[in-house]
Amino acid sequence: MPTNTKTLYQNYIVEEFRIQKEPFYIPVSDEIEIFEAAYKSKIPILFKGPTGVGKTRFVEYMSYKLGVNLTKINKTNKTKSKNDDSTGIPFITIACHEDLTASDLVGRYLLKGNETEWIDGPLTRAVKSGGICYLDEIVEARKDTTVLIHPLTDHRRILPIDKKGELLEASEGFLLVLSYNPGYQSALKDLKHSTRQRFVSIEFNPPPVDIEAEIIHHESGLDKATSMQLARLGEKIRNLKDQGLAEGASVRLLIYAGKLISSGINARRACEVAINWSTTDDLTLQQSINEIISALFP
Amino acid sequence: MPTNTKTLYQNYIVEEFRIQKEPFYIPVSDEIEIFEAAYKSKIPILFKGPTGVGKTRFVEYMSYKLGVNLTKINKTNKTKSKNDDSTGIPFITIACHEDLTASDLVGRYLLKGNETEWIDGPLTRAVKSGGICYLDEIVEARKDTTVLIHPLTDHRRILPIDKKGELLEASEGFLLVLSYNPGYQSALKDLKHSTRQRFVSIEFNPPPVDIEAEIIHHESGLDKATSMQLARLGEKIRNLKDQGLAEGASVRLLIYAGKLISSGINARRACEVAINWSTTDDLTLQQSINEIISALFP
Amino acid sequence: MPTNTKTLYQNYIVEEFRIQKEPFYIPVSDEIEIFEAAYKSKIPILFKGPTGVGKTRFVEYMSYKLGVNLTKINKTNKTKSKNDDSTGIPFITIACHEDLTASDLVGRYLLKGNETEWIDGPLTRAVKSGGICYLDEIVEARKDTTVLIHPLTDHRRILPIDKKGELLEASEGFLLVLSYNPGYQSALKDLKHSTRQRFVSIEFNPPPVDIEAEIIHHESGLDKATSMQLARLGEKIRNLKDQGLAEGASVRLLIYAGKLISSGINARRACEVAINWSTTDDLTLQQSINEIISALFP
Amino acid sequence: MPTNTKTLYQNYIVEEFRIQKEPFYIPVSDEIEIFEAAYKSKIPILFKGPTGVGKTRFVEYMSYKLGVNLTKINKTNKTKSKNDDSTGIPFITIACHEDLTASDLVGRYLLKGNETEWIDGPLTRAVKSGGICYLDEIVEARKDTTVLIHPLTDHRRILPIDKKGELLEASEGFLLVLSYNPGYQSALKDLKHSTRQRFVSIEFNPPPVDIEAEIIHHESGLDKATSMQLARLGEKIRNLKDQGLAEGASVRLLIYAGKLISSGINARRACEVAINWSTTDDLTLQQSINEIISALFP
Amino acid sequence: MPTNTKTLYQNYIVEEFRIQKEPFYIPVSDEIEIFEAAYKSKIPILFKGPTGVGKTRFVEYMSYKLGVNLTKINKTNKTKSKNDDSTGIPFITIACHEDLTASDLVGRYLLKGNETEWIDGPLTRAVKSGGICYLDEIVEARKDTTVLIHPLTDHRRILPIDKKGELLEASEGFLLVLSYNPGYQSALKDLKHSTRQRFVSIEFNPPPVDIEAEIIHHESGLDKATSMQLARLGEKIRNLKDQGLAEGASVRLLIYAGKLISSGINARRACEVAINWSTTDDLTLQQSINEIISALFP
Amino acid sequence: MPTNTKTLYQNYIVEEFRIQKEPFYIPVSDEIEIFEAAYKSKIPILFKGPTGVGKTRFVEYMSYKLGVNLTKINKTNKTKSKNDDSTGIPFITIACHEDLTASDLVGRYLLKGNETEWIDGPLTRAVKSGGICYLDEIVEARKDTTVLIHPLTDHRRILPIDKKGELLEASEGFLLVLSYNPGYQSALKDLKHSTRQRFVSIEFNPPPVDIEAEIIHHESGLDKATSMQLARLGEKIRNLKDQGLAEGASVRLLIYAGKLISSGINARRACEVAINWSTTDDLTLQQSINEIISALFP
Repeated sequence: MPTNTKTLYQNYIVEEFRIQKEPFYIPVSDEIEIFEAAYKSKIPILFKGPTGVGKTRFVEYMSYKLGVNLTKINKTNKTKSKNDDSTGIPFITIACHEDLTASDLVGRYLLKGNETEWIDGPLTRAVKSGGICYLDEIVEARKDTTVLIHPLTDHRRILPIDKKGELLEASEGFLLVLSYNPGYQSALKDLKHSTRQRFVSIEFNPPPVDIEAEIIHHESGLDKATSMQLARLGEKIRNLKDQGLAEGASVRLLIYAGKLISSGINARRACEVAINWSTTDDLTLQQSINEIISALFP
Repeated sequence: MPTNTKTLYQNYIVEEFRIQKEPFYIPVSDEIEIFEAAYKSKIPILFKGPTGVGKTRFVEYMSYKLGVNLTKINKTNKTKSKNDDSTGIPFITIACHEDLTASDLVGRYLLKGNETEWIDGPLTRAVKSGGICYLDEIVEARKDTTVLIHPLTDHRRILPIDKKGELLEASEGFLLVLSYNPGYQSALKDLKHSTRQRFVSIEFNPPPVDIEAEIIHHESGLDKATSMQLARLGEKIRNLKDQGLAEGASVRLLIYAGKLISSGINARRACEVAINWSTTDDLTLQQSINEIISALFP
Repeated sequence: MPTNTKTLYQNYIVEEFRIQKEPFYIPVSDEIEIFEAAYKSKIPILFKGPTGVGKTRFVEYMSYKLGVNLTKINKTNKTKSKNDDSTGIPFITIACHEDLTASDLVGRYLLKGNETEWIDGPLTRAVKSGGICYLDEIVEARKDTTVLIHPLTDHRRILPIDKKGELLEASEGFLLVLSYNPGYQSALKDLKHSTRQRFVSIEFNPPPVDIEAEIIHHESGLDKATSMQLARLGEKIRNLKDQGLAEGASVRLLIYAGKLISSGINARRACEVAINWSTTDDLTLQQSINEIISALFP
Repeated sequence: MPTNTKTLYQNYIVEEFRIQKEPFYIPVSDEIEIFEAAYKSKIPILFKGPTGVGKTRFVEYMSYKLGVNLTKINKTNKTKSKNDDSTGIPFITIACHEDLTASDLVGRYLLKGNETEWIDGPLTRAVKSGGICYLDEIVEARKDTTVLIHPLTDHRRILPIDKKGELLEASEGFLLVLSYNPGYQSALKDLKHSTRQRFVSIEFNPPPVDIEAEIIHHESGLDKATSMQLARLGEKIRNLKDQGLAEGASVRLLIYAGKLISSGINARRACEVAINWSTTDDLTLQQSINEIISALFP
Repeated sequence: MPTNTKTLYQNYIVEEFRIQKEPFYIPVSDEIEIFEAAYKSKIPILFKGPTGVGKTRFVEYMSYKLGVNLTKINKTNKTKSKNDDSTGIPFITIACHEDLTASDLVGRYLLKGNETEWIDGPLTRAVKSGGICYLDEIVEARKDTTVLIHPLTDHRRILPIDKKGELLEASEGFLLVLSYNPGYQSALKDLKHSTRQRFVSIEFNPPPVDIEAEIIHHESGLDKATSMQLARLGEKIRNLKDQGLAEGASVRLLIYAGKLISSGINARRACEVAINWSTTDDLTLQQSINEIISALFP
Repeated sequence: MPTNTKTLYQNYIVEEFRIQKEPFYIPVSDEIEIFEAAYKSKIPILFKGPTGVGKTRFVEYMSYKLGVNLTKINKTNKTKSKNDDSTGIPFITIACHEDLTASDLVGRYLLKGNETEWIDGPLTRAVKSGGICYLDEIVEARKDTTVLIHPLTDHRRILPIDKKGELLEASEGFLLVLSYNPGYQSALKDLKHSTRQRFVSIEFNPPPVDIEAEIIHHESGLDKATSMQLARLGEKIRNLKDQGLAEGASVRLLIYAGKLISSGINARRACEVAINWSTTDDLTLQQSINEIISALFP
């Protein structure tokens, strides 16, 4: 197997995908420790949880943090490094969907003048650069995509590039992270055991009210008291699941409401357009949510 | 991430998509304020409502209005601007359908002489030009299209161009607006929560009779009295929904009838061909509508 | 938007699609007036009705008539015109089916030597030439085709050519005409309200017996008396719908029988092969039709 | 419309498809007269009937016969003609199936050196050469194929070549003939009325025993007596339909048996391998057929 | 039709597909005589029967035998022949499957330098070379493949090459042989009557115990006594069909067991891995088969 | 058939796929002897068994062991060999999935400058190099893939390369190995008898507790006592299948837990994220597994 191709590609082309600024993230449990331990042992990670609880934000945060750690180590070791400034390790997100082909991930040949030229896909770039590759909503992917990651997630850590007849060994720092919403799954779209048993799993839930309020305040610029009211609204709407609400209002929608209120829109109207109508089309549920809004913003 | 590509593309190629003349639009509620507040906060917007209530007209109006506002600000600031004349900000509409691919939106390589040349798709042009991109009837789109807009509609505001291995950061004024008809949705074609919870929602309903009459009068050139009769006809037909009418007559059909009457066609006959037969194939419903027509145009 | 491209394309390439000779057409109702009024107001038209009642013939007739009217106006105005001879306006028919792609309508790039060359599709040619584009059996079309005509059928009157990144404004005389057979529609294949509410609708029914006899006589060269018998046969077969006949014999089949009789085939045998066997495979219905034939041609 | 392209293509390229030798055909009814009358009036023809009753043989016979008639006329008129020898008019068969595309019929562009070159498909060649185009088992065709023949089968007699933007007018002698097995049709695969009402229909049934015996004798070289026994066997097997036999033994299988017997295979064994096993997999029906064989060939 | 192309292609390119060595085959019935008679009369042949009973071996044997016969005739006639050594006639096998296109069989254009070059598919090569073309498991083929063979299997014996606009007449010795497993067929995948009634049918069943033992002995090198025990095992397992076994153990699996035993693996263990586990996943049936194994190999 | 192409390709291009270091593998039964006997007799092998029981590891181990054996033989025979160092025979893994085409396996033409160049697929490379080709999860493959291996797995041992019109005879050491999980199969995705009866079958089950503990200890670096606890945990979770657990925890997940514990994560938490959440989404089953974890790690 090729072992000297690693150095060649390591710091190449994906520089721009490094996160430059620390993302705002408040840990809820020991998720940072689990992530760091798995990363150290090269164990791929699966995020389980509903929409809008901060899975993407967390993996961005970790890719930044792991890069900063690395810089510190390099400085301590007095090694000269290109990454003297604090930046994350390479970070590549791929939103999965039914039409994403293996070629979209791995790369393809393009006609350039009289020659066909090979263009690496995002997964190949991540594998070469030694960064984190985040496959968002993996169950939406086609089966060929899912199968493609198998040799990357066992002891082999290789990516077969069939079209070039190559086996690419993953760089040192490479890790695959997947996200998955168990609430969505149907019989047709489930994660096969031969796939899911290649990952440790971190479960995500909506943050507690006080943390959510702090996030709303930080992200929307709204005052702390009203932010807390919005966080309470979010919590109460999530309790409507028993009445048939498919999914509660995400932190994102609460932040939207906060921003509209900051822009001068009346609080009840802001909650209506940003939260109520964006959460459900059901008239009865809209009525229930409106009552909660009226109670919290009299 | 690339930050200096913005200036490069900002006023490039999409000039022709700016609306030159103020579209005729009569606001029904506070939709203009909500839209402006969301636009200022870079919150994507979802339009919910039935066919023909003026959603497309409204987004055209807003793209014109936002451009004029901008020109005024530039003038006040005495900055030299290419847009001295009042024109809208760039505006790009995409009608979604099952066969619209991600490449249709983002762009593709074309063979030109001996080289492949990249051609930006409409979404990429909108993202570069800092205008409004309007995805009409989003639930008709394929899943890969829907997923494509996710990173454009959260804090990242980026468009990944997989085929070029690029991440494109949205220009300052860019906003995504979607339309969606909740009455149409089936289990198969619904907007996923991971998509809809990225938008504030503005609901649209048919305008009140007096506003609708004014629109008919303005658009068809028909006299005000007959326009009011057509508006009343529209309102009465919408009430037939309880008798099984799938969708009432849109403002557009009422305007068509107005135009035919202006052209000299008998009012009852004009209502028959422009409204009744275009609204339903059901013989019983056609009979009911004919009776309403006869009552209003004796 | 581009406004000076109109003159450029107006009399270009589609000359050959102009109908040179007045088609034989006998009006049944005020369909000519409705069509002319809608054409004048640029309102798209939907033809509703069963197979073989003359929808295609009527739109051919109108495209001829509108061209002749235009020539007269030009002569009156003493303008020099390329169309001094009486010919129709440009007329382009497109038979819709499941595999008709948007590219088939709009155009595509073809490799020509070392360059890719753009070839306009039939819809684009119609839009440029300012003629009538007739989409036959629109419900058979794929959704992307249906959606494509939306911006052509509202106040915008534009055709987006995604692959070229262009918006093409329709020429002055352009009009879209669709045909649609409500009897055929299933739940799967129906015209969406967002599509049908963009058209005024003209309903077509089989012509009355005397008009049908005149058509048969004119088209087949058969004597008037036998033509009347064939027209009566057509009327009686249509009454068999209550006995389960899916669709009656079209005018076309009656003309076929007329031609076979003119060629010397026995009248009853001609009706059998041209009408009975071409209308149904059901043995009982064939028996019923045979009895009607025997009664009319003893 | 182009009128002078006819002469250009008339005797071009399809020479090789002319049938050189009179096919063996025994008429059962007035099918030859009907065919000639329809051909003269340019009325397309639909053959209805089960497998193996001689539909293909009949259309081959007619294409030969029409060519010979034409030669005679030319000789009588003392015109110099390329077809001095007796040969058929051009004859092109297309076996329809689900994967036959419109391009397969009409033609396509092929890359040849640095240019794309247009290659006519079989339907285009037939339309140009003025011969018979036989679409075998039309209901197996995809919808785009079916729709393609509509403008060829009404008063227009044109073939739109979308990819070239051309309308091709059919040459003088062109006729479309379709075959169709009503026994096969399911709800999914039926001939639409808008298609079938463009044809006169000739029904085919298995020939009477004496004609079938003559055919077997002629085609297999078997003596007349044994040929009659095989014809009787065919008739008796067809009567098994009431016992669940999907389709009886075709004339072709009877001829096969005749050939095997002529080659020295025992008559009962020849009937078993050529007729019984090729007609059904059902053990009970095989038993019944074996009993009939034993009775006829003791 | 082209008649002089035959000589041109006859001994071209497919030389390598001739079988050089007489395949080991023991006839069970008169299958050799039937095959030779059908081949002489150019009647296509259908093999009916389950997996692993020797259908492929038989057609290989016949293609060898027919070639040797031909060589003998040539020698007797003192004609100089390229095939002085005994070899089979050309023999081409095609395993049918759902994704096998007509182009895979007939050929396709390939870009070679600046020209597109036509490459014959395997069926075209067989048609040109005058050999046997064996379509294995024909019901797995797509409909376009099945339809393609129709003109090759009636009196025409032609292969239409649509993409080149050619009709290729089959060479003298060409014959089409199909295989088909009636036990497999479902309603969806059945051989249409219009296809199957073009063939004589030879039925295959597992050979009698003594012949099977001889085959096992010959192929695996195992002693005769143990080979007989394996043949008995095969027979007994086939009787388990009444207990739900989908398909018995094929001769091939019995030979595998023989080889493993020859390699020193214990007989019961060899039967377990080569026969029992390869025949079924059902635990109860595995138990039954194990008992039979234990009884025969105590 | 081509026989001299073997030497040409034998040691070409696939060198990199030889395993360099002996994989860690503890045999459970006589699987090594069966594999060696089948390999010697050129009998293809099917692995049956659930996820994560070491099928891939075993075939890697065998490909290494067979290579070392070969080196020893060469040394004994004093032949000069390129493989003086101990390395495996060529080993190529292909993960099957629905979108893997025959071309992906066999090879394809690529445009290179002005010429199309043939690139061997992985199966072709394995066939040429005489190594082991491992098709993982064969039932996921498309039918054309499955059929492709038939001529490679009977007495012919050939790979037809249709696109090049070649038959490639397998090199001496080539063997096909398939894996298959009988627990997964549905009616839709089953291994056809015509495929499975071409293989001897080796069944795999989870290893006994003491062997599993040794594996966990070796792979994770965890102490032997805790490794034994994890092995017991694995055994107990597998017993939950009766309560509805689709698949037990694989050895891989137990090793993950071991690694996390070695990294300092609390044992119960490590089992939760690595084993419990990765095995099931069912809350009740998660509760049961948590109780087992608490009992084993108090």
